[in-house]
Amino acid sequence: MHRIKVKVVEEALDANNTIAQANRADFDRAGVRVVNFMSAPGAGKTSLLERALADLPGVRVGVLEGDVQGSLDADRLASLDLAVAQLNTDPGFGGECHLDANMVRSALPALPLAELDLLVIENVGNLVCPAEFRVGEDRRVMVSAVTEGEDKPLKYPLMFRTCDLVLVNKIDLLPHLDFDLERFLYYLDQVHPDVPRMLLSARSGEGIEPWRQWLSSVAATEGALA
Amino acid sequence: MHRIKVKVVEEALDANNTIAQANRADFDRAGVRVVNFMSAPGAGKTSLLERALADLPGVRVGVLEGDVQGSLDADRLASLDLAVAQLNTDPGFGGECHLDANMVRSALPALPLAELDLLVIENVGNLVCPAEFRVGEDRRVMVSAVTEGEDKPLKYPLMFRTCDLVLVNKIDLLPHLDFDLERFLYYLDQVHPDVPRMLLSARSGEGIEPWRQWLSSVAATEGALA
Repeated sequence: MHRIKVKVVEEALDANNTIAQANRADFDRAGVRVVNFMSAPGAGKTSLLERALADLPGVRVGVLEGDVQGSLDADRLASLDLAVAQLNTDPGFGGECHLDANMVRSALPALPLAELDLLVIENVGNLVCPAEFRVGEDRRVMVSAVTEGEDKPLKYPLMFRTCDLVLVNKIDLLPHLDFDLERFLYYLDQVHPDVPRMLLSARSGEGIEPWRQWLSSVAATEGALA
Repeated sequence: MHRIKVKVVEEALDANNTIAQANRADFDRAGVRVVNFMSAPGAGKTSLLERALADLPGVRVGVLEGDVQGSLDADRLASLDLAVAQLNTDPGFGGECHLDANMVRSALPALPLAELDLLVIENVGNLVCPAEFRVGEDRRVMVSAVTEGEDKPLKYPLMFRTCDLVLVNKIDLLPHLDFDLERFLYYLDQVHPDVPRMLLSARSGEGIEPWRQWLSSVAATEGALA
């Protein structure tokens, strides 16, 4: 029985990868770089985008907001000079806990791809399934908030392993937590040795500048990125 | 295409409910009350269990730990006088982001059901899919940490709506956050009016006593609970 189940999952992933490649071809044709942005619920993805995207001179940015329901995050970003589209996984997709390539593909007509340099896809808050579905992105970024505890790399290894950058958020709270930063970084290196990481706080603004520069440099990269 | 997909999901849920009822019959026969314990990653489920279960006189407790990988949480609880079993969703189940009734059923032989009054099933950290799969529980409890922001009831409504109790954790951090507690409770009442809620902190111990008493009273209830 489990063997059958695994087979079905593999077929689903293959279909996903096929559509992800089609997305990728569209992104390349439009000359837009794409970041798949992931984290647990409440880790601070939208706040980190608000901080970074409010001042990204010369970069035309779009955001695709993925949520089970509602448009809270898209509404928050609407005050910035961005192209924002909301993709809900509840109606039509059945309340999915992640974005997949087909959902992203269905939302692309809502975005002016050819007029963008950078598209950030804010995934559904979840540390498991989003890591399993490529959507055609150039880069994968995840946020891990220090309020979530040191053990998260060991408990959700695929997410930490498949990322190109780990943002360690809410460091303004470190004085008030028992969080052992050294241990977290040790676990992170066990799961994904030497993955680039940035310590920052969307609330205080500390460490935001390197994150902003990272987004700018991804947007400015010519040619193959993978 | 979506219509076909929805149909498959409904059939899967039906199979899950059939197995959940079989679990429930086994729990009733053994005279054990079962709590399905859910939250986002790092909200403090294990810490809240450590606090409450360390001193629950007269109640024989078992814990089933659900994780994608590893046994970190089970190891933490092993020092307490409990029956603890670890259920990993990665090998065999393909890295599932939730527990379902069949996974729980496969783990039941590892627990001395007939010798327990209360079984707590600590689900995988995720605010979406765990809410969609009953596992045979009497009660559903979720943890929402104040560090996750006020908007979580609106973004993950099914989870908040299907719970019998909401634990609002990490209130020791309120002085250091911009979290608006009144607004969170307003959103909570929009999604699930008057659901019982407790404000507490696993770290400081504040508010733990009502949580402990709630677990005791569930364990002591005779007859039908649903």
